[in-house]
Amino acid sequence: MPRVVTLTTDFGSGSGYVAELKGRLLHATTPFTLVDISHDVPPHDIRAAAWLVGQGCAAFPSGTLHIVVVDPGVGTDRGLLWARLGTLKSHQEFLCPDNGVLTLALDRPLIAARRLDVPSAAAATFHGRDVLAPLAVRLLDGLNPETLGEPLHDVGRLHWPSHQETPTGIHGEVIHIDAFGNLVTNLPASFMPRLAATGRLRVGTHEITTIVRTYGEAAQGTAVALVGSQGLIEAAVVEGRADERFNARIGTPVGIHAPA
Amino acid sequence: MPRVVTLTTDFGSGSGYVAELKGRLLHATTPFTLVDISHDVPPHDIRAAAWLVGQGCAAFPSGTLHIVVVDPGVGTDRGLLWARLGTLKSHQEFLCPDNGVLTLALDRPLIAARRLDVPSAAAATFHGRDVLAPLAVRLLDGLNPETLGEPLHDVGRLHWPSHQETPTGIHGEVIHIDAFGNLVTNLPASFMPRLAATGRLRVGTHEITTIVRTYGEAAQGTAVALVGSQGLIEAAVVEGRADERFNARIGTPVGIHAPA
Amino acid sequence: MPRVVTLTTDFGSGSGYVAELKGRLLHATTPFTLVDISHDVPPHDIRAAAWLVGQGCAAFPSGTLHIVVVDPGVGTDRGLLWARLGTLKSHQEFLCPDNGVLTLALDRPLIAARRLDVPSAAAATFHGRDVLAPLAVRLLDGLNPETLGEPLHDVGRLHWPSHQETPTGIHGEVIHIDAFGNLVTNLPASFMPRLAATGRLRVGTHEITTIVRTYGEAAQGTAVALVGSQGLIEAAVVEGRADERFNARIGTPVGIHAPA
Repeated sequence: MPRVVTLTTDFGSGSGYVAELKGRLLHATTPFTLVDISHDVPPHDIRAAAWLVGQGCAAFPSGTLHIVVVDPGVGTDRGLLWARLGTLKSHQEFLCPDNGVLTLALDRPLIAARRLDVPSAAAATFHGRDVLAPLAVRLLDGLNPETLGEPLHDVGRLHWPSHQETPTGIHGEVIHIDAFGNLVTNLPASFMPRLAATGRLRVGTHEITTIVRTYGEAAQGTAVALVGSQGLIEAAVVEGRADERFNARIGTPVGIHAPA
Repeated sequence: MPRVVTLTTDFGSGSGYVAELKGRLLHATTPFTLVDISHDVPPHDIRAAAWLVGQGCAAFPSGTLHIVVVDPGVGTDRGLLWARLGTLKSHQEFLCPDNGVLTLALDRPLIAARRLDVPSAAAATFHGRDVLAPLAVRLLDGLNPETLGEPLHDVGRLHWPSHQETPTGIHGEVIHIDAFGNLVTNLPASFMPRLAATGRLRVGTHEITTIVRTYGEAAQGTAVALVGSQGLIEAAVVEGRADERFNARIGTPVGIHAPA
Repeated sequence: MPRVVTLTTDFGSGSGYVAELKGRLLHATTPFTLVDISHDVPPHDIRAAAWLVGQGCAAFPSGTLHIVVVDPGVGTDRGLLWARLGTLKSHQEFLCPDNGVLTLALDRPLIAARRLDVPSAAAATFHGRDVLAPLAVRLLDGLNPETLGEPLHDVGRLHWPSHQETPTGIHGEVIHIDAFGNLVTNLPASFMPRLAATGRLRVGTHEITTIVRTYGEAAQGTAVALVGSQGLIEAAVVEGRADERFNARIGTPVGIHAPA
């Protein structure tokens, strides 16, 4: 396959901003494969973008270039960056604002990063089109990224909620809600034996008492807890919506009681 | 053109699940063209997926590989399959759960099918990423599909509503509602002379008395009956929404009275 | 890169109509890059399509073929056309109904246009699939567009609202609302000195008194006026929605008072 370029933005699917971004990218001489990750990140939601980039980027072939434009600070003095994460053998590249969108992707080692210069002719409100896309074209056509600007030794990260263990149990929260209404928590799969022992997952003020391996193991409408495909404990309703059932949102507390 | 691979899922457009699926597919060495059919099939709606696959797949070039992941039974003992449908000269290939998503595509002859083995390392909740995508990569890179698993001699089908003729007339139902709100029925175009003779199409408790060849032939706001692009009789409101006008949904009865 | 083909329709993202259109296009022998601009143009909204085509098309490489199917008059005697706009060195091609969807794209010179013949076998309700897609395949595979049908010397245009200057000030209106809720007006950036001098932009019955260069220059929730990335004056709410704050829609009047 030719090199892959992905796009993650909050511009809105079908918006003219996405069209402009793609149009500029397609000026590259070298063939590449353009993939939309999402253009419907909730507006200005850097956290949601960080989740999506963290979930999605690792699956792509080494050398993929991810362009992420969720950028409420566009045109201010927040930086723009190029970064390469991973290992020499398997790495991903990024062009994005330095505002935390790489928080979860940075689970991988930072190999190199550069702070990008902003040409004075760039529209103050659309650096994706006027800075990132032209740089992507040059990178695709062979530019050495080490020439892009000053080296960056660190990259911005968001505070990310982690679970905590106390004498009363394990305490976490909902960190993602998927299109099915499933609640992804920040409790890793390694807590499953603890969950199996107590037999109940707390979600807000509710308790889920059916622990399964996959959705279809319980009857339609049953609330279940299981390990989702990200290796995190998840609350779901079989062929239903857990977010509605439990009135849950990002940040809703979840927990596993300490054994009695 | 390189070979085409299409994706039809209920993962939600812009979800990380779609990103992971695409990322894995793009590990193929052989170039291919990746096309999204939809990621917004209503969650768990096998019937809607079957409609979409049936409508869309025939238009693609022979040899296209369609990956369909609407799979409420993921991780249970429902099977996963590879199938080739059509004729030796013009055929389509599929990777999907054996749950009925091919019901309408199976209007074409089943040339060959295989039941897929599920590796034990596959996440129980995401066979699209962990089983179908890696197999698609191997098929794209030249694997003989006849080696994929045990031959399947039949493939699961949903019960699909068919129209009925009685002494009182022809009775059918709404089987699809498109983005314009047009109501696609299961009455084939061959009933148009009957419809023209009686001059009225019943939709639920309403009657449509304007029969046209295309939407623009009647004034804006007029309810019309016509043959849609699928060769089926359709109820529409010119530049309006027939689903709202007639409070119709999938399954709403439609009919043509017997001549008086 | 191979030649680019873009799609702009009101078929609805994920609809089977889009699948059919893409499937037919992919029968071209010559490789091309297929790009979705939007399939969620509001149904039958030629004006919205004209905005999107006008905003997006100029960014694409010369020679791009744009297929635009927002076509409430499909099957009536409205024409279908092929057109080439721009300059010999940098031009864009279009296949679309002759209903005004090129209104803004026609800021560029019309180099050539042809009225397309409609084969009698084409479904009266889906010329995109049955006329435009097969012609696109032939054009991609080398057909000379000058053979497509009779020359057209002019192409349909919508009336497009322009701003007006009167003794009381400059009067315009909202012509586009983006996914962030930002209000794009038909007042060009050249009026910024006038706006800066009076210090207020009128939007409906409200006034915006904070003039900025980019969104992030004012505190969250502040209503601001600025030059957007299209070179037009825009009303926005920092990390909020101006459409909701000002209860604005397409056509809402905007203005800059004459200096006192």
